[in-house]
This record gives sequence, C-alpha cells and structure tokens, in this order.
Amino acid sequence: MKMGVGKYDELFNRIKERAKLVDEKLFELIPEKEPKVLYEAARHYPLAGGKRIRPFVVLTATEAVGGNALKAIYPAVAIELIHNYSLVHDDIMDMDETRRGKPTVHKVWGINMAILAGDLLFSKAFEAISRAEISPEKKAKVLETIVKASNELCEGQALDLEFENREMVSIEEYMRMISGKTGALFDASAKVGGIVGTENEEYIEALSRWGRNVGMAFQIWDDVLDLIADEEKLGKPVGSDIRKGKKTLIVAHFFENADEKAKEKFLKVFGKYAGDVKGKGIIEEDVKAEVMEAIELLKEHGSIDYASRIARELVEKANEALNVLPESRARKDLELLASFMVEREY
Amino acid sequence: MKMGVGKYDELFNRIKERAKLVDEKLFELIPEKEPKVLYEAARHYPLAGGKRIRPFVVLTATEAVGGNALKAIYPAVAIELIHNYSLVHDDIMDMDETRRGKPTVHKVWGINMAILAGDLLFSKAFEAISRAEISPEKKAKVLETIVKASNELCEGQALDLEFENREMVSIEEYMRMISGKTGALFDASAKVGGIVGTENEEYIEALSRWGRNVGMAFQIWDDVLDLIADEEKLGKPVGSDIRKGKKTLIVAHFFENADEKAKEKFLKVFGKYAGDVKGKGIIEEDVKAEVMEAIELLKEHGSIDYASRIARELVEKANEALNVLPESRARKDLELLASFMVEREY
Repeated sequence: MKMGVGKYDELFNRIKERAKLVDEKLFELIPEKEPKVLYEAARHYPLAGGKRIRPFVVLTATEAVGGNALKAIYPAVAIELIHNYSLVHDDIMDMDETRRGKPTVHKVWGINMAILAGDLLFSKAFEAISRAEISPEKKAKVLETIVKASNELCEGQALDLEFENREMVSIEEYMRMISGKTGALFDASAKVGGIVGTENEEYIEALSRWGRNVGMAFQIWDDVLDLIADEEKLGKPVGSDIRKGKKTLIVAHFFENADEKAKEKFLKVFGKYAGDVKGKGIIEEDVKAEVMEAIELLKEHGSIDYASRIARELVEKANEALNVLPESRARKDLELLASFMVEREY
Repeated sequence: MKMGVGKYDELFNRIKERAKLVDEKLFELIPEKEPKVLYEAARHYPLAGGKRIRPFVVLTATEAVGGNALKAIYPAVAIELIHNYSLVHDDIMDMDETRRGKPTVHKVWGINMAILAGDLLFSKAFEAISRAEISPEKKAKVLETIVKASNELCEGQALDLEFENREMVSIEEYMRMISGKTGALFDASAKVGGIVGTENEEYIEALSRWGRNVGMAFQIWDDVLDLIADEEKLGKPVGSDIRKGKKTLIVAHFFENADEKAKEKFLKVFGKYAGDVKGKGIIEEDVKAEVMEAIELLKEHGSIDYASRIARELVEKANEALNVLPESRARKDLELLASFMVEREY
C-alpha cells in the first residue's frame, strides 16, 4: 500500500507522523543489543518498512472516543510487534523469499533463527503491554484483548495451512480463516484503542466491529488485486495466487458456482505453477496465457465481482458501526482508511 | 526425573497432587477443539508427561510467603505453557526426535504445525495470566516478570544456537547461556509465586534468587548425568552430549584447563557422532570406547568434579537465600527440591 492519492493525502500524512512516534518506542523494545544476531533478525522487518497501519488504528481509535493517543503508544507497539512476529513465522511456513522488498528473515538467518526472532517479537509485544502507562485495570483489559487476537491468529493460520491439503474450501470456511488471520488483529487494534480512551462499552464494541470488518475487507481486496491489478504497480505477476493454488474468496465462489467442465478447466492451471517456472522446461509466456484464461473463467462466473462486492460491503458495515461515536477528525480518518482499503490499486 | 526415593517421598507426593490441580486449568486453556490439528499438536507435550516442577515451584513459593496457593494456579499454568512452548520450538531447532518418550511435535505434525503449536502455547500462557484471579496490580507484576523470563529464554536459546558454530565457549559464556535458557524461568516461577502471595519485596527477591540458582544447578547437573549416569536409568547412551558436541560447563572447564595435546585428543571424538551411527559404516562399540576415553580425559582434568561442585554450590546459594523467609513446610519443600536437583541419578 503506497501513499499519496489526492483525497487520502492528509490521512497518509497523519499515518506517517504517527509511525514516527510508534517507531521510537518500537525500537526501544528491540534495540541493537546482544545476542546480536537475534536482535538483528528481529529488527529486520520493522526496519525494512511497513506503514504501521495497525498502530495508527490503535492511536486513532483512542482519539475517536475522546482519549489521549499518547497513552496508547505502547499498546499500539504491542500490536505491531504481534503483526511482525506473525509475518516472520508465516513466511517460514509459506516458504516466502521476499517481504517488503528484502529477503525474508529465514532466507537471511536460517529457519532456526527466524523461529527464535519471531518468538522474541511475540514476547516483546507483551513487554510493550507491560510498559503501557495506563491503569492496571486497563492494562488487564488490553492484555485480554491482545491475547484473544493472538490465539485467533494461530487458529486462522492453522486453517490456512490446512487449506493447502484440500481440493477446495467453501466461502464460509474462507471467511472463518481470514476472520482469524487478518480480522482478529485489526479488531484488537481498534478495540485496544477504545479501551485506552474510554470506559464506554458501546464505543469499544463499535470499534471492535469496525476493525474485524475492515481487516477482512483488506484481505479480500488483496486477493482481488492479485487478479486485476497492474502488474507493475503490484510488483508481482498477475494471478500469482492462481499459480500457487491459493484458496481465496474468489476461488471459493467460483467452485460453489461453476459446472464440472469449467472447474476441470480451471484446475488444470490452479496451483500448477508454484515458484519460478524458469529452468523447468515451461515457457513463461504459455503460463501467462493459461493464467489469463483461468482469470477469464473467474470473471465469467462473476467471482471477482462477487469478492469485490463483499469487500465493499464489509467496509460499509465497518463504517456504519462507527455511527455511534461522536463525529471527529479521528472517526473520519478511520472511515477514510476503511474506504482506502477497497479502493487502492496496489 | 522420576519420583520415589526415600527422603523425597513426601515432596514427590505433593508435586503429584499439585500437578493434578495445575493440569485441570492447563487443559482448560488447550482443550480438544477446532482447528483440531493445531490443538492436538499443542496438547502433545503436556499430555505426554512432565512433572509440572515449575508450577509446583510457583504454588509452593506462594505458600512459603504465607499466601494462598489457589490464587497462583493460573500464573503457574502460564509458566508451564511457556516451558512447553520453548520445548516445542527448541526441539525443531535441535532436530530432536523424541521427548518424554514420544516423537517430538515436528516429527508427528511437521515443522510448520510445530512452529504454530509452539506459538499457540506461548499465546495461551498470556491468556493464563489474563485469567488469574488476582488484583490488576499483581497481574501487571506477574506479566512483567513472565515477559522478562520469556525474553531471556529467547536470548539464552540464541546463545546456545550460536555456540554450535563455535569451536569452544568459556565458562563465563556457558553460565550466561544457562542463566537465560534454564535459570530465567525457574527464577520467574519462584518470583511469581512470591508476587501472588505477598507484598514483601525482600521475600520476593529471595525467591527470585533461589529460582535462578536452582534452575542453573538443574541444567549443570543434567550435563553431569549425561557423563556419569547409569545408561539404563538415563534412557540414552552415556556421553550422548559428547557425541553431539554439546558445549557444557564440563567441556568449557576442560578447555580452559587442558594442554594442547589433551584438547586435540578430545576433539577427535567431540561432536563426531551426532545422530544414529547405524548404517554409516561405524561400529557402535568403537564409538562407545572412544567416548569413554573422552570422558576419562574430562575426569582426569577434574572437569566433571568441577561442574558437580558448581551445581552443589548453586543449590547451597539458592537455599541460603530462603533464610529470610519464615520456616514452613513450603519453604522446606523448596529446599528439598533444590537438593534433589543435584542428588538425582537420572
């Protein structure tokens, strides 16, 4: 997600400003220290980039309920650390080789150190909660909320791993998986911000609902972009998910709606070109043509439109939830961020 | 560590009783539920056994400062979950194939699911803290203590991984490594028990010191047993650490005290027989003879005696720290447990 597109300019500027505040405390928790290799590996993704969207949600949610965002910095850092730990471990499991334009942690330091670096980031997330300058009562609630999300994260990832061994997954199964894998941490981000800023349970509940829906929309839109985005903007070949056989909402919809013949045709391409085709006696141009045909099948069955609509509906639902909150710049920013999730082109 | 050796009988009975209480809450946190594979993998080590020594320390420490052990159950469960998470991940890194008489998690479910099961156990540890029925102030202190230990656990494991690429390590480096890898969690166990049971900082500090020293003694004695124990009682070949090239306190002492000739002789065996020798054109009897010679070298240089003495001194230091506590059955149990650590024969 890159920044700077007209109506979102101010939002992006605020995200950047907040990211600076967050990074100060983030790197205080993972400084350059001994054992050097461990801390280097743990700092790799946070140093490589990332927009700190989840911390922004935490801080902005605090403001949206009338609280002081500065009180929410450490909880925001905790969420970002959880996010980064899960990236490190997921990249091992998915055998991904690059992330944020850099080689993945396990590619640089090996699997053992990557497991350990992820563990350290996870542990540091709870240290961040521990450091939060909020009442012990609020700290306990923040802990409870983040723990619930990190449990769900594991459960969502387990479903995703399980999907790999399956011929197909249903729409319902897919939605459950991303609810855990992407929805839970956005939910926790907004909710934690609410907890820090208010005692009003209705506000906190609204933020939680906003986050869950936005997180899921974010993931679905990611899957849509893989099929429709400009290859150059996206930085990877169109249809890379089809090559890898990734079970997305689009594919789940297709399988619930296509006839046997169409399914058969699709399965000839789906998951057949994982990794680099070079040196395997396969011609990239032929693969591309086959992938484009598969995408055509998805389009014909309305599967891409379906997923796009679901993503947009989730964002609407998310923003509707915020109606109980008083109007404010912070609430507006959350609404804008949600819209951006399903309007971005890369 | 098996139970039932005369003077320790009553202690062992109490450990068993407490283990039942602990397991009730432990399995409440990791029940049989969906995603089935994830929870099965996470339950594997807790179900396979383990004496729940660390939880026993937590509960007994609470009583030793005059508190109610029942209040400390969830913190005790948290410590046991951290212990189990670290076993799952360490076993992947060490490529160990069995644990508690069963195949390791990654051997049964593969590395990906093992990473995830470890992550879930880690996450559940913090859920256990979250559930503790203690004041929010105490909960915050328990969190801080456990987080510190889990950071140290990662740091200790990173040092241990780093040792694998080193020709040798110094006594000082070894002590730093086990302080993190084994000392930190025993320290946290006793300290957390203290926090739950009292406001007296002197008591809490004493328990913390007791735990750190006991944990380190435990590890050193484990390394000694690998060289001197009865093969049948130990359940693995004598000198398996020498075959694997594990850098223990004994080996560190040897290298700081042996001349070049002795070192050279030792290095011909050290680390040369990792894994099973079967089918590698090596005769087990020859290996055994070589390993026995290497052990003889360590004996001649007083390295085994040195490590045994250090372990016993650590236990003395540990128990001395408890002198500030009022006398009680609980304090006596902690003292007995510490002594057992360096008297056990397997």
